[in-house]
Amino acid sequence: MLEDLKQQVCQANLDLAAYGLVTLTWGNVSGVSSDRTSFVIKPSGVAYASLRPAHMVVVSLATGEVLEGSLKPSSDAPTHRLLYEQFAGAGGVTHTHSPKATAFAQAGREIPCYGTTHADHFYGAVPVTRPLLQHEINEAYELNTGKVIVERFQGLDPAAIPAVLVAGHAPFAWGADPHDSVMNAVALEAVAAMAIDTLLLNPAASAVDQALLDKHYRRKHGAGAYYGQK
Amino acid sequence: MLEDLKQQVCQANLDLAAYGLVTLTWGNVSGVSSDRTSFVIKPSGVAYASLRPAHMVVVSLATGEVLEGSLKPSSDAPTHRLLYEQFAGAGGVTHTHSPKATAFAQAGREIPCYGTTHADHFYGAVPVTRPLLQHEINEAYELNTGKVIVERFQGLDPAAIPAVLVAGHAPFAWGADPHDSVMNAVALEAVAAMAIDTLLLNPAASAVDQALLDKHYRRKHGAGAYYGQK
Amino acid sequence: MLEDLKQQVCQANLDLAAYGLVTLTWGNVSGVSSDRTSFVIKPSGVAYASLRPAHMVVVSLATGEVLEGSLKPSSDAPTHRLLYEQFAGAGGVTHTHSPKATAFAQAGREIPCYGTTHADHFYGAVPVTRPLLQHEINEAYELNTGKVIVERFQGLDPAAIPAVLVAGHAPFAWGADPHDSVMNAVALEAVAAMAIDTLLLNPAASAVDQALLDKHYRRKHGAGAYYGQK
Amino acid sequence: MLEDLKQQVCQANLDLAAYGLVTLTWGNVSGVSSDRTSFVIKPSGVAYASLRPAHMVVVSLATGEVLEGSLKPSSDAPTHRLLYEQFAGAGGVTHTHSPKATAFAQAGREIPCYGTTHADHFYGAVPVTRPLLQHEINEAYELNTGKVIVERFQGLDPAAIPAVLVAGHAPFAWGADPHDSVMNAVALEAVAAMAIDTLLLNPAASAVDQALLDKHYRRKHGAGAYYGQK
Repeated sequence: MLEDLKQQVCQANLDLAAYGLVTLTWGNVSGVSSDRTSFVIKPSGVAYASLRPAHMVVVSLATGEVLEGSLKPSSDAPTHRLLYEQFAGAGGVTHTHSPKATAFAQAGREIPCYGTTHADHFYGAVPVTRPLLQHEINEAYELNTGKVIVERFQGLDPAAIPAVLVAGHAPFAWGADPHDSVMNAVALEAVAAMAIDTLLLNPAASAVDQALLDKHYRRKHGAGAYYGQK
Repeated sequence: MLEDLKQQVCQANLDLAAYGLVTLTWGNVSGVSSDRTSFVIKPSGVAYASLRPAHMVVVSLATGEVLEGSLKPSSDAPTHRLLYEQFAGAGGVTHTHSPKATAFAQAGREIPCYGTTHADHFYGAVPVTRPLLQHEINEAYELNTGKVIVERFQGLDPAAIPAVLVAGHAPFAWGADPHDSVMNAVALEAVAAMAIDTLLLNPAASAVDQALLDKHYRRKHGAGAYYGQK
Repeated sequence: MLEDLKQQVCQANLDLAAYGLVTLTWGNVSGVSSDRTSFVIKPSGVAYASLRPAHMVVVSLATGEVLEGSLKPSSDAPTHRLLYEQFAGAGGVTHTHSPKATAFAQAGREIPCYGTTHADHFYGAVPVTRPLLQHEINEAYELNTGKVIVERFQGLDPAAIPAVLVAGHAPFAWGADPHDSVMNAVALEAVAAMAIDTLLLNPAASAVDQALLDKHYRRKHGAGAYYGQK
Repeated sequence: MLEDLKQQVCQANLDLAAYGLVTLTWGNVSGVSSDRTSFVIKPSGVAYASLRPAHMVVVSLATGEVLEGSLKPSSDAPTHRLLYEQFAGAGGVTHTHSPKATAFAQAGREIPCYGTTHADHFYGAVPVTRPLLQHEINEAYELNTGKVIVERFQGLDPAAIPAVLVAGHAPFAWGADPHDSVMNAVALEAVAAMAIDTLLLNPAASAVDQALLDKHYRRKHGAGAYYGQK
């Protein structure tokens, strides 16, 4: 089942390594089925070099149970599952420990929109969650990771800001499909790196004006977008 | 038309990726025709891996209209166009979001000439523009980006300082031809990286003496140049 | 003798270079025999490009004498030897001068557990030894390097924190076998890099809660581990 | 003439690029003849990709005149020449603008010996020259660059500290032969990178004790060296 999606998800996981976002096996990408009843995710702890579409695991969106696959799904599967359930526009989810975005997560700081590179991909600051409470860590940890992400997005549009920093942990990004979620993870790491250097050069750096944020975001997204080909 | 220039511009765009200056599709190079009536530019949002000379778009310098090509030109084409119009010596223009130069742009700081690496390529500090005003952003944004660059170069020689940082955005570089503009973008990123570390080591670092700036710049440029082969 | 172990140790040394942990010849990996009577180690100062299993040197764990091999063992062999003697669970030892971990060693600072990347591999801060005293440097230097490591681990579990920073020197890591020790050296360098950026963003950053440390470490290690495949 | 040395010098220049020490054409390596009457150096401004042994230029040590070669020698040739004249043990000289070492040169700071990586290659701090005076820049600039290096080494042993930072410019390194000078340039860049991070982590970091400096330097150099193979 879902052979085409398995292929997409496998390729998206390989792209993570190609874009230099992962060390060892610290990352995973998933994609949801078009009927949003199941999602396909990387198996847990398998090296990227040996990853094949047939290794991908199919998980039920309703129950979290494995529907197909001989390997265990990524231990982060419950986080992916909640994001698909709560973020209706998410067709793919990417989790990495990419170093610069992870540094922001560890520092407990959001990434302000310091420039148009950021505005092209994220409509405002990339937010950071609150730390999980002790009982949220001890029980259903990966599900609760999803819950603090969803909590943080109350009042925010996950389609307009397709990434988050989980405090003390690392980033999650999402997108229209698996590939798109990887592109957002790539953009996130790049803007995180630039933001660190921006702060070194100007600790009082401020976010760009709303007009510039609007302009760049809308060049690429929405009805009036004019970036790229039709 | 302009088959040779299309080839040069395509190669220069590929060189951007080879030099590690671009993430995803965040960069574009153009080149002006020898009669300065049109310029050739990368199509908007096309991945570097699939870029071919036939994809290049020919744009009228007088009107900004597409003269040839089935793809849309880079959305930054109006900025390129104004630079060709105003900077008579520019035969090629390169725009990137290279990370270290972009950090200076985001921090709103110029790059002082901290050493001979800088002096070899830029005759003095690489300046930063003022931020665009709200109305400049909302209407004809890309053209106005060119206008603040030209405004910033009043009293400066664009042939001697072939790069600029657009505040809150990213760098533009130019040169005698498309390849030369890429070389200046490469040099800019390298001196930006060195300047960040210089400031970490010595927050009070000062620019080199005028004599050293003169010496190194003139070793490579102008009538008395003695660097390289004849 | 120990042909399989020589193969493993050779490959682990080559992996050091592949993971970007070594400059020139600054690193070495060893592995202990299953009966813990000898260990196999890289020869001293041989370039990675020309390294072959037959070059590996077999050293007696009891006496430190070379048992087999025409080349001299790594000058750090006495440090490896003491670690095998004192850390019963160590089947492989990796020494590198990987740049970010070495910066912590040179700064004389431990690496706190700032996030789950760290917690996945190291159950708490990666400690730093005291500097060696003058007489410890002048006589039996490499053996004394091992002794200050062992001294630093009094009250710590080397299986739970499989790495250390030797003050003014560089890291050592260990693991169940040579490959595992390299994986820990890779993880160490990654968490060191993230920790530097974390401190730049938040000089008052604190280690994660004990509950999160427990959770992530135990996801990957021990009886209740559920990360990876069975 | 000197075909073997041309081959060595060409390869050493290519190694510069392979080790990531050069951007564009910003670097050059030379080697002196065994009778110390001439030296072989890279031609000026030639791209590394097209460099061949036949392009190397032979220069007289006595007069600085080109003895053989159809291309112009590196514009830094007079600096190389003075170093061969004054530093009797130098058989090869490498000049780069490697970014981290150049940051120290631009900041006007020496690189203290913060750890054993440094001590293995440089017996003490890598010094920084004074800035050149205006008249030293205007006339015989490259020769005067050599002179301030030699001036800075009064009381220092160039064989024990085979590198220098020219203030506001970049590093020079030397060694027993061209390859060895490149190895020292590689080590210099690595210790510069580590030193920057060391200072970020501990602005009050101090150099290692003399005993540790002695130990590590003498493990690798001099009569009692025991690192590497015989």
